[in-house]
Amino acid sequence: MPLKTSWVTSANSADHPFPLNNLPYGVFSQGDDDPRCGVAIGDMILDLRAAEENGLVVLMEEPLFEAPYWNDLMEQGPAVWTALRNRLTDLLGEGSPAQAALHACMVPQSDAQMHMPIVVSEYTDFYASRNHAFNVGTMFRGPDNALPPNWLHMPIGYNGRASSVVVSGTDIRRPWGQVKSPKHDLPAFQPSRRFDFELEMGAIVGTPSEGPVTVQQADDMIFGYVLLNDWSARDIQGWEYVPLGPFQGKATATSISPWIVTKAALEPFRTDTPPREFALLDHLKDCGPMLYDIDLTVTLTPAGGAAQQISRTNYATMYYSAAQQLAHHASSGCPMTPGDLLGSGTVSGTEPDSRGSMLELSWGGQEPMQIGEATRSFLEDGDRLTLSGAAQGDGYSIGFGRCTGVILPAQPDPFAETKG
Amino acid sequence: MPLKTSWVTSANSADHPFPLNNLPYGVFSQGDDDPRCGVAIGDMILDLRAAEENGLVVLMEEPLFEAPYWNDLMEQGPAVWTALRNRLTDLLGEGSPAQAALHACMVPQSDAQMHMPIVVSEYTDFYASRNHAFNVGTMFRGPDNALPPNWLHMPIGYNGRASSVVVSGTDIRRPWGQVKSPKHDLPAFQPSRRFDFELEMGAIVGTPSEGPVTVQQADDMIFGYVLLNDWSARDIQGWEYVPLGPFQGKATATSISPWIVTKAALEPFRTDTPPREFALLDHLKDCGPMLYDIDLTVTLTPAGGAAQQISRTNYATMYYSAAQQLAHHASSGCPMTPGDLLGSGTVSGTEPDSRGSMLELSWGGQEPMQIGEATRSFLEDGDRLTLSGAAQGDGYSIGFGRCTGVILPAQPDPFAETKG
Repeated sequence: MPLKTSWVTSANSADHPFPLNNLPYGVFSQGDDDPRCGVAIGDMILDLRAAEENGLVVLMEEPLFEAPYWNDLMEQGPAVWTALRNRLTDLLGEGSPAQAALHACMVPQSDAQMHMPIVVSEYTDFYASRNHAFNVGTMFRGPDNALPPNWLHMPIGYNGRASSVVVSGTDIRRPWGQVKSPKHDLPAFQPSRRFDFELEMGAIVGTPSEGPVTVQQADDMIFGYVLLNDWSARDIQGWEYVPLGPFQGKATATSISPWIVTKAALEPFRTDTPPREFALLDHLKDCGPMLYDIDLTVTLTPAGGAAQQISRTNYATMYYSAAQQLAHHASSGCPMTPGDLLGSGTVSGTEPDSRGSMLELSWGGQEPMQIGEATRSFLEDGDRLTLSGAAQGDGYSIGFGRCTGVILPAQPDPFAETKG
Repeated sequence: MPLKTSWVTSANSADHPFPLNNLPYGVFSQGDDDPRCGVAIGDMILDLRAAEENGLVVLMEEPLFEAPYWNDLMEQGPAVWTALRNRLTDLLGEGSPAQAALHACMVPQSDAQMHMPIVVSEYTDFYASRNHAFNVGTMFRGPDNALPPNWLHMPIGYNGRASSVVVSGTDIRRPWGQVKSPKHDLPAFQPSRRFDFELEMGAIVGTPSEGPVTVQQADDMIFGYVLLNDWSARDIQGWEYVPLGPFQGKATATSISPWIVTKAALEPFRTDTPPREFALLDHLKDCGPMLYDIDLTVTLTPAGGAAQQISRTNYATMYYSAAQQLAHHASSGCPMTPGDLLGSGTVSGTEPDSRGSMLELSWGGQEPMQIGEATRSFLEDGDRLTLSGAAQGDGYSIGFGRCTGVILPAQPDPFAETKG
């Protein structure tokens, strides 16, 4: 599929992240205005609340864009998702008769503040990159026992904390937590010294389920994808996670990119999951190409320093797709709801410079990275960490924009007054 | 504190669960009416939406009881919680001048259908009974390694699934899931054969936090308590839980009792946590008596059979209080929100007949229980499992009512059509 051209001419260059082929959905505000839903086209945003009020985008009798999140639209299901995308493609395409009428609904992205695009109902994080699971397992248990016995049979995941999901651009405060050093007999409560990022994709569930679903049904339930950084305090996690899994080490914040790239926009980029040692059970079997060819990069910018790319990998390297994760999630009868966010798990490639976390890039701190004139094993205060992602089409790209955050120093001891 | 008497005379008997001292909060409907907030008094319910509309309960300018859940009231904070309780105590007390006016707002409990009392924003389950952790650890790792090294230093917990929380009385469908028997090399997808209950208390968070909080602040944030049954598929959980913790084994359903017993009603029953081998770190230190003396019982009723009490224990046996769990939960900066539900973890006493799960009562199936003329290692289809709880005061009791559910057979193979 070639580039579709728009009368928003900035959208028509081969390397712009938001051509007419993309049409990602976000929530934005201008100045002191209320946040509202919008769609990115080139360097502009079409204000959907305004377009709906003006009668330019009318899909249902009741309004879909009154609230500052996409959940209301998502709940309408795939037929309405398609109708909206078709309508927007017509409105924003080159030669659209609506161009003049739309003029009052267009906002420059440079004037806009981005907000959370959805109300996250619940957040689940998976662990579906074989390279990542192997790297981490090797560090902790040696290469022969790196993968847990269940790993090749189902997408392992845990429930995270929806209240901690924030939009790209939000500063991230280094957390305090309980940690235990191997050098000490007793744990201590202190600021995390091994604070890390995780390069992930996030899948957004658009429609609900009430019982088990097939992988195909799960794929149909997915509305779109975002970049996701699951900030991780490795020292807190290391002490807490046996036997019930990650908890406070993953609860400080998870950042997502502000623009939801729809499943429809990603259709041309579907790829197969990799060959498997064990056939998956029926409820997890692939129903077609399930992953996407999406290039992912990570840059680290120290305070006052230059941005440096520290990792480059591809979402197509994953072992389990979001649809398989969702099918597994619903298999027990767990009700899935619009706004559920599923983290893919850290995306790591096979090469050392394609790893998706500092834990792997610095091999647990044993091989610090050179960043400009400094070194890094984990993130330091003032560091900016940025994820980027794009699928490369024939003369166009489908970009995700950026998912970025700056590490703020830990707050002063929050319990100084309670010390005895 | 003695029994406070009410003009609703059924509330004045020493063993009634809902005297004027209690005033638990729920959501009910009558016939085809909309669900609405109410408070239990004896055998009756005071309809709070009606009382607010009639001007009998007016705490704020804006209405607090329009919606069919308690979140709006909870968000107002402790001063409004106290004002409501004081107003209800006046209205429902013996000799209240409002008795005649309230007549139109009273509904017999026997006519009412109970609903979820809150919108559960997120659900976290802890593991805070030392007896339970020791029993389960002993079964899996032997008595010398029963408690994980972190267990005596912080309340271990994991994030559960809010969408799966249901009100008492909801039938529970036996789940399918991926399990692996030690006898087989490969896992299978099948109905759970080791489906279990967990006797717990649930604490409901009423006010939000944005950063770490002290244990005292955490205690102030708690609105009230319910009985909680965290239904658990032990065979699914056993195969999935390493390394990221319980997931689908705990995602089918969690039942809660319909009436929220407020922290205020439980004040006379506070008890100390037990002696500790290791002093807790400052952020988790007790700030006074933190547990409650609440008798808890479990009965199992086979289909067509007689109810049999299978366990009796007390919430005061826990090692960590809900306030300590909440302080730990917020310690990383994790935002806590009104409607968060914290499961205490299975409440098990020291004696064999005070254990809070079939896993412990049947010692992993090795010592099946005698139930009437049958035996049970885990729950069977048609079994009704009921939790009850009450604090015993001086001539009155503070009851929680019941938390009950019946096990339905697993659905037919949900993936029969996908089999190759």
